[in-house]
Amino acid sequence: MRIFKRRNSGEKHSTLQPVAGNGLLDRRALLGRGIAFAGAMSAGGAASLTGAAAEPLKDEQWSLEPGEVLSPYQQPSKFEKKVTRILSNPRGEPRTQHARTPHHMLNGTITPNGLHFTISHQGNPDIDPDKHKLIIHGMVKQPLAFTLDSLSRYPMVTRAAFVECGGNSSLLFSKEPVQTDVQNLHGLVSCAEWTGVKLSVLLEEAGFDKNAKWMIAEGADAPAVSRSVPMKKALDDAMIALYQNGERLMPGNGYPVRLLLPGYEGNMQVKYLRRLKVVNQPSMSYYETRTYSPVLPNGKAYRFFFLQEVKSFITHPSPGLMLKEPGLYEISGIAYSGTGRITKVMVSADGGKSWAKAALQAPVLSKAFTLFRMAWRWNGSPAVLQSRAWDDAGNVQPTRAEVVATRGETKTVARVGGFPSQHYNGITSWGIAGSGEVKHVYA
Amino acid sequence: MRIFKRRNSGEKHSTLQPVAGNGLLDRRALLGRGIAFAGAMSAGGAASLTGAAAEPLKDEQWSLEPGEVLSPYQQPSKFEKKVTRILSNPRGEPRTQHARTPHHMLNGTITPNGLHFTISHQGNPDIDPDKHKLIIHGMVKQPLAFTLDSLSRYPMVTRAAFVECGGNSSLLFSKEPVQTDVQNLHGLVSCAEWTGVKLSVLLEEAGFDKNAKWMIAEGADAPAVSRSVPMKKALDDAMIALYQNGERLMPGNGYPVRLLLPGYEGNMQVKYLRRLKVVNQPSMSYYETRTYSPVLPNGKAYRFFFLQEVKSFITHPSPGLMLKEPGLYEISGIAYSGTGRITKVMVSADGGKSWAKAALQAPVLSKAFTLFRMAWRWNGSPAVLQSRAWDDAGNVQPTRAEVVATRGETKTVARVGGFPSQHYNGITSWGIAGSGEVKHVYA
Repeated sequence: MRIFKRRNSGEKHSTLQPVAGNGLLDRRALLGRGIAFAGAMSAGGAASLTGAAAEPLKDEQWSLEPGEVLSPYQQPSKFEKKVTRILSNPRGEPRTQHARTPHHMLNGTITPNGLHFTISHQGNPDIDPDKHKLIIHGMVKQPLAFTLDSLSRYPMVTRAAFVECGGNSSLLFSKEPVQTDVQNLHGLVSCAEWTGVKLSVLLEEAGFDKNAKWMIAEGADAPAVSRSVPMKKALDDAMIALYQNGERLMPGNGYPVRLLLPGYEGNMQVKYLRRLKVVNQPSMSYYETRTYSPVLPNGKAYRFFFLQEVKSFITHPSPGLMLKEPGLYEISGIAYSGTGRITKVMVSADGGKSWAKAALQAPVLSKAFTLFRMAWRWNGSPAVLQSRAWDDAGNVQPTRAEVVATRGETKTVARVGGFPSQHYNGITSWGIAGSGEVKHVYA
Repeated sequence: MRIFKRRNSGEKHSTLQPVAGNGLLDRRALLGRGIAFAGAMSAGGAASLTGAAAEPLKDEQWSLEPGEVLSPYQQPSKFEKKVTRILSNPRGEPRTQHARTPHHMLNGTITPNGLHFTISHQGNPDIDPDKHKLIIHGMVKQPLAFTLDSLSRYPMVTRAAFVECGGNSSLLFSKEPVQTDVQNLHGLVSCAEWTGVKLSVLLEEAGFDKNAKWMIAEGADAPAVSRSVPMKKALDDAMIALYQNGERLMPGNGYPVRLLLPGYEGNMQVKYLRRLKVVNQPSMSYYETRTYSPVLPNGKAYRFFFLQEVKSFITHPSPGLMLKEPGLYEISGIAYSGTGRITKVMVSADGGKSWAKAALQAPVLSKAFTLFRMAWRWNGSPAVLQSRAWDDAGNVQPTRAEVVATRGETKTVARVGGFPSQHYNGITSWGIAGSGEVKHVYA
């Protein structure tokens, strides 16, 4: 029996042309013939398999016995039990609870429902959908009440949309880089396919006053989370969402009905929606005047800063995902913009000195996650990986320096779980050490 | 306090122009101003809410107490516990188990992972991903072994794709319409976003023989399900799939790695994939020569009938979903084709006498679920609803009569759970009774 030698993938590819500094490569070249990309081993010990009458593989125990009975609602393998949301307040003490999405362990444009992020100010209400109503009232010809049954008869629309907390990534306001992973840094954004009724259809039916400028949205959870929404947005792409990735909304994402405002900060997309009041001025509610009106370095505060701006971050590699050896890797990550479609993502492996254009996974959808991918040959030396995104309105993701110049920086190192400020959309940098370890750095 | 009268939505819309017989309407007209689509009630008892200083709504219990603590991996609300897969063999007796997707309770192009259909011939193997290997061997320059870790370093691709069992919908081969719901009739098809490595990249790396015409794919489950796959398909859009809707594959869908062959029958898309052997002739394995070689009325049998052809069915309304009263409804459903993109879906409300073009939800993706929607005013008389799909290769979904003429019909009424034959892609008809009850009919 021959034993094949493990090939040295680093050596074979010296002919691949770099597209930017420190080993960034044209991704298409890696999809061609004869590329030993990522350390596949020759089938050592399996040489006898090359013949036409191959010997059977060695059977593991699971190939020798009947498997598990199917379940009515299937769950991930027990070997994936570490792939969970991180909880900020796992005992549910009387303060806000956060559950963050593990982006470094996922791969796709959809966040599976079990792992969609949640922020809850007093836990998830256990709402009986048969008793829940949505009221539209205020400056309307006729106030209307909708049961879940009646909403289900309206024309439906389906779209992908990311939802992001205004405080996501706020640890990057810290004076020094907080040493944690992408889940703690950026885990308060997720993306799902939502299905529901266009809000404009319901507002038209109620006969809203054309002079109304605002709408107050209120949830049925214990704190009755309440936010002011411009009528312009309500009449544009706002949705009364009933389904999330095909099934009814998750309890942590607004079951049985939420307001979806694609591209706007998560807190406005009121969960457990029970009423919409059409008015002519904003309500200046708790969340919009306190949490989501951050004070800026110039002493002023953002007021009604709704948009989640163009942003990207690398998920593979990222802290916790070790590079085991020099060689070829794929750098990949997520980009999105509350304004529209992602048009370009640039990647750097030398801390921003040189950049190359990443491949974007089609279809690229407005206000939804877009995956970007870049081929990279790591030579084993220290490197700094960054990504930077552009959207179809011409917006470009700012550097960290640009963000903190306008939005502030903490005087000390922020703690994990803290929210030094709001609306960080700057560049994230991952430092790769010679050992292959990945750390959060500023560059 | 004024009590508003419930409006009669049927009467208000007599000016809407029909687009086909028996009440089919232009959907766009229903998205306009002042349409009372689906029986929203005036906010009777809530008249005091019309003022600027609205009285608070009556609080239900869940608005008065803290909610439930967030969980690391969230689950649907307990009020959705009926939304599950139907199991054909819930005790896991030593025969095939089926778990069918409840399409009538879902809405979207994505099947959530908990509800993706599964067929398992000896239960789900409980595979340790650290011990699992995928071998590529046979007519290759160098056989290769891939661990899950090494596969994870390859360039990834992401795409939506439906997977459908060749036996899905086979109850429609029954001589008389089987009285059951869309889950039992059509529940062996689902659609997910899959992420993994293009198989062509791995075959190139192994240096496959260009004269090889076939590849044998084998699973690591107890029956070692084995199928022959044309190399042409393997080199086209075949994927070694690792992720399903962003997270690792579900145990019932091939964890930790499956072969994805977009548009081909589900059984070929071997789950728990442990080897691919490149060969020059098919293996004539159990499933391809027995189950998936149905005998036809002309005495011949289909051999290597791989494609899941263009198809559609209405999910709303469908059996079990009662129409409560005459009025406006949205008819919606799912269309897909193993050949490519859906280009058109026509809907009939009079059993095929007249047809109107349904709206297709963008983006329309190749070999993935496409949602179609049609507005309908039900006048309370009996009606027969049908849908019919076209794809971008010009294929048209056949009538049931056309399918049974070429592929056969049972002599007696088929039983739920039986598989009279394979590859039914004909039209499905729902009969609406005057009572609003929906039944499976042939028309």
